[in-house]
Amino acid sequence: MAFLSDIEIAQQAKMKPITEVASQLGVGEEDLEHYGKYKAKVSYDLWDKVKDREDGKLILVTAITPTAAGEGKTTTSVGLAQALAKLDKKTSLALREPSLGPVFGVKGGAAGGGYSQVVPMEDINIHFTGDLHAITAAHNLLAAMLDNSIHQGNELNIDPRRIALKRVMDMNDRALRDIVIGLGGKPNGVPRQDGFDITVASEVMAILCLSTSISDLKSRLAKIIVAYDYEGKPVTAGDLKAHGAMAMLLKDALKPNMVQTLEHVPAFVHGGPFANIAHGCNSVMATRYGLKLADYFVTEAGFAADLGAEKFLDIKCRMANLKPNAVVIVATVRALKVHGGVAKENLGEVNMEALAAGIPNLEKHIENMKSFGLPVVVAINAFPTDTPEELKLVEEKCAALGAPVALSEIWAKGGDGGIDLAKKVIEACDQPNDFHYLYDEKLSPKEKIETIATKIYGANGVAFTAQAQKDLKAIHDLGLDDLLICMAKTQSSISDDPAKKGRPTDFEVTVREIRISAGAGFLVAITGSIMTMPGLPKKPSAVAIDVDEHGKISGLF
Amino acid sequence: MAFLSDIEIAQQAKMKPITEVASQLGVGEEDLEHYGKYKAKVSYDLWDKVKDREDGKLILVTAITPTAAGEGKTTTSVGLAQALAKLDKKTSLALREPSLGPVFGVKGGAAGGGYSQVVPMEDINIHFTGDLHAITAAHNLLAAMLDNSIHQGNELNIDPRRIALKRVMDMNDRALRDIVIGLGGKPNGVPRQDGFDITVASEVMAILCLSTSISDLKSRLAKIIVAYDYEGKPVTAGDLKAHGAMAMLLKDALKPNMVQTLEHVPAFVHGGPFANIAHGCNSVMATRYGLKLADYFVTEAGFAADLGAEKFLDIKCRMANLKPNAVVIVATVRALKVHGGVAKENLGEVNMEALAAGIPNLEKHIENMKSFGLPVVVAINAFPTDTPEELKLVEEKCAALGAPVALSEIWAKGGDGGIDLAKKVIEACDQPNDFHYLYDEKLSPKEKIETIATKIYGANGVAFTAQAQKDLKAIHDLGLDDLLICMAKTQSSISDDPAKKGRPTDFEVTVREIRISAGAGFLVAITGSIMTMPGLPKKPSAVAIDVDEHGKISGLF
Repeated sequence: MAFLSDIEIAQQAKMKPITEVASQLGVGEEDLEHYGKYKAKVSYDLWDKVKDREDGKLILVTAITPTAAGEGKTTTSVGLAQALAKLDKKTSLALREPSLGPVFGVKGGAAGGGYSQVVPMEDINIHFTGDLHAITAAHNLLAAMLDNSIHQGNELNIDPRRIALKRVMDMNDRALRDIVIGLGGKPNGVPRQDGFDITVASEVMAILCLSTSISDLKSRLAKIIVAYDYEGKPVTAGDLKAHGAMAMLLKDALKPNMVQTLEHVPAFVHGGPFANIAHGCNSVMATRYGLKLADYFVTEAGFAADLGAEKFLDIKCRMANLKPNAVVIVATVRALKVHGGVAKENLGEVNMEALAAGIPNLEKHIENMKSFGLPVVVAINAFPTDTPEELKLVEEKCAALGAPVALSEIWAKGGDGGIDLAKKVIEACDQPNDFHYLYDEKLSPKEKIETIATKIYGANGVAFTAQAQKDLKAIHDLGLDDLLICMAKTQSSISDDPAKKGRPTDFEVTVREIRISAGAGFLVAITGSIMTMPGLPKKPSAVAIDVDEHGKISGLF
Repeated sequence: MAFLSDIEIAQQAKMKPITEVASQLGVGEEDLEHYGKYKAKVSYDLWDKVKDREDGKLILVTAITPTAAGEGKTTTSVGLAQALAKLDKKTSLALREPSLGPVFGVKGGAAGGGYSQVVPMEDINIHFTGDLHAITAAHNLLAAMLDNSIHQGNELNIDPRRIALKRVMDMNDRALRDIVIGLGGKPNGVPRQDGFDITVASEVMAILCLSTSISDLKSRLAKIIVAYDYEGKPVTAGDLKAHGAMAMLLKDALKPNMVQTLEHVPAFVHGGPFANIAHGCNSVMATRYGLKLADYFVTEAGFAADLGAEKFLDIKCRMANLKPNAVVIVATVRALKVHGGVAKENLGEVNMEALAAGIPNLEKHIENMKSFGLPVVVAINAFPTDTPEELKLVEEKCAALGAPVALSEIWAKGGDGGIDLAKKVIEACDQPNDFHYLYDEKLSPKEKIETIATKIYGANGVAFTAQAQKDLKAIHDLGLDDLLICMAKTQSSISDDPAKKGRPTDFEVTVREIRISAGAGFLVAITGSIMTMPGLPKKPSAVAIDVDEHGKISGLF
């Protein structure tokens, strides 16, 4: 049997009009703003109608430490939602919104895979409802107003050597990482060093994803620190009076986007902040709507459980007062074998020793999630090469930690392949849970970082470089000690060393720098070199992309 | 009586659902792609249904040389369309799509004024259906692929000192005019000088506006000259294999946007290229649809008749094979007095000598339009300070040139204020006309430029600087002599000297440089310094903009 590619499956899908999809959740025409037949934004007014309802069950999908073998977190999220719907549960789903830039580089789409995708897949990956373009515009308006303020007499006494805000573009463009602007003489402003990040790295994206209303959005935007003045005091977007116009540009972007899965389950796809320098979760707006509208609500967080899930629980849940009911950790037998030391080309062979050596990675993530007081279900994304004895070993190890395991075939079978997983998730949600945050926000930033590193990563301790210590002092002097912590760490290891697979032990985490995202409400503790503007590869995927006379796309993904 | 502002009138408007508006032109639900209730894109499939119909009457609205007193060309276009509809003519309208950047600077909206506006006005001015964002993305993808090609081994042998393509952003941001990119070492690419233009100055915008289909769009995009190689040969977007992915990004942007006027006349608002370095007209797509769907179709061109109308007739009509039926020239008594030497503060006073001295500006534009073989109607946009004797003088002078004059009160009264104008336009359209282009495209670029300068501007001749002569030779060597001419000249005078008001005589035009827009299909003859990236003023209008909890905007315009 020939397998269809993701885009072929997506293009063959018979979608329902979004009006029909939304009506499954009781959302009427009056609360939808249509973008074509299959995409809509949900109105602000809907919130007033639903806010007093009880929340549905909140299910977070996260994963083991990713390897080159892949694990399928987004696909599992979609498939689980489809399976819950098959079991007649009123279900909705929220995913992150993909960035345009990577489409032209090496990465594929970000809308699930196989028979567990959200559609219209191409629209979701390209322009969609314009949210990322709105964020780009809002961010760059702030940057233009900043340089204009310096140029027009510098009333705010801004030190051009201490600008904190870069510009952004939703493109993989390495040539813009490090630039000099304002050249060419007086009419062109004040020369200074600058750079572009990719749009999803913008603090404006993180803010959009954490805001609960337009007024919350505005107040967060106003707090963005864009520069420091000659006395070392922070200059904010509010000081530049940019936050009103920025919020105007974002007024529609803040409304959650609704689409559907291949099996017509209503899916929110909204907001997509970086999972290293930001918190890596879809928007609070979509999550809040989803919880009010459905009995079971599935969402995911970026990277593995040590990063995405920790931030979901400690940052997003705390800020939005969310109470999760269960955590699903996605793993594959192949990826666990990679953690046990098997090379990618040998993954087809049974290797029980390597599997046993890799399972501690999964165990650590299970222990971590349980440490938040939450029930855990492990979803093993099935591959044709998996053997019963391999699966049995995984099950035994997880059972010892009190985590049921479900074999998931949602890539090949859609919702039907996730029935066992869905049943186990429903059981987990029915358990009483003792959810609590990992750390008290009143701890010092240093203590908060140490708590995450020792308890979640299993580090012996944290080394702060001279720069990081300087940053900690500046943060204290600014009165920002109560901000939450957003760890920027490699996704390829639970430690801060990407080479350490499995469950690393006996290591120290080094924090090199701590940046302030005052609008988002967190401090970004940077433990390695973080790339905030990707580049294109030697043969960009863009060269193969085409579109025909009727607008049909080819060569994408 | 207190006058309402444009935004107040627009916000109070009771719009009809766009489905209803489109149905006036026989466009059904199946051919609309909705963006909310009041905006839609028209499908490509509609063309197959209407292409064999006879075209409606094509009416171009242009203006005298603009002054600080304003003349109201867009407002007249909207009002004329409303008046034609009041006379039971099946009417549609096409305007240019506004740029986001200027919204935050000093300029107001670009959607007409008073009771002759297109709505939803705020949406049209901000993001709209995302066309400008798509153009920005397509342009910057090309730029990223260009720098990537140089960085990844430079297979095309591109000379980094001879890059023709800048990057673009839809923002007024002077600090990006002149920049150095690719700094920071090898991973960040090859350092070189670069700069950003505002998005509407992108050749991609001009191409989008001149394309008749996706395949035409692709073939034009492929021809964009992005750089020259070390042997001096042009390197194109096609050489970089970027045109397919660019066209994919533009596949929806190429579809015309439909909105409505305050009186529910169907209006296309689509495409908005610069009126100096580009041709300054709305899209060929919108114009072609409008002509097939309506009996009377009104459109406008940027700046005054010497620039916008000449390019509309010589470039857009020639490329799209359009046959105009009448030209409306908009003037105000106040502006004519400015051309006669009156200072702005004295415009309230009757001054027959100044008026008589200013009328030759209008006369020259009438003569020019008639030289294309087209009937001309003059629309005098009424101000409360105008007197009967002033209007009588204008009428007499125009009558001598065979151009009827209509007093237009469309700002204050909407369509009712344009009935006389509409009747005169209908009469003009009923006349047989002898439309022909100004120049033969087979003339040399030098001869084509000289024809425009002497016949349309009334210059004695053209001086080509050493640079311009070098450019002419390069164009000849590239085999591009047959391209049309796009003059980049000041809008403030019929000559190339902005200080020369009225009808300048005895002057020479100086062409300083000739740029190649091979994809758009024209050579840009530059006669002065052309600003392609505006800056923000000392107090940007952005600081006053705000949005409330329900998304209602204030402080805009």
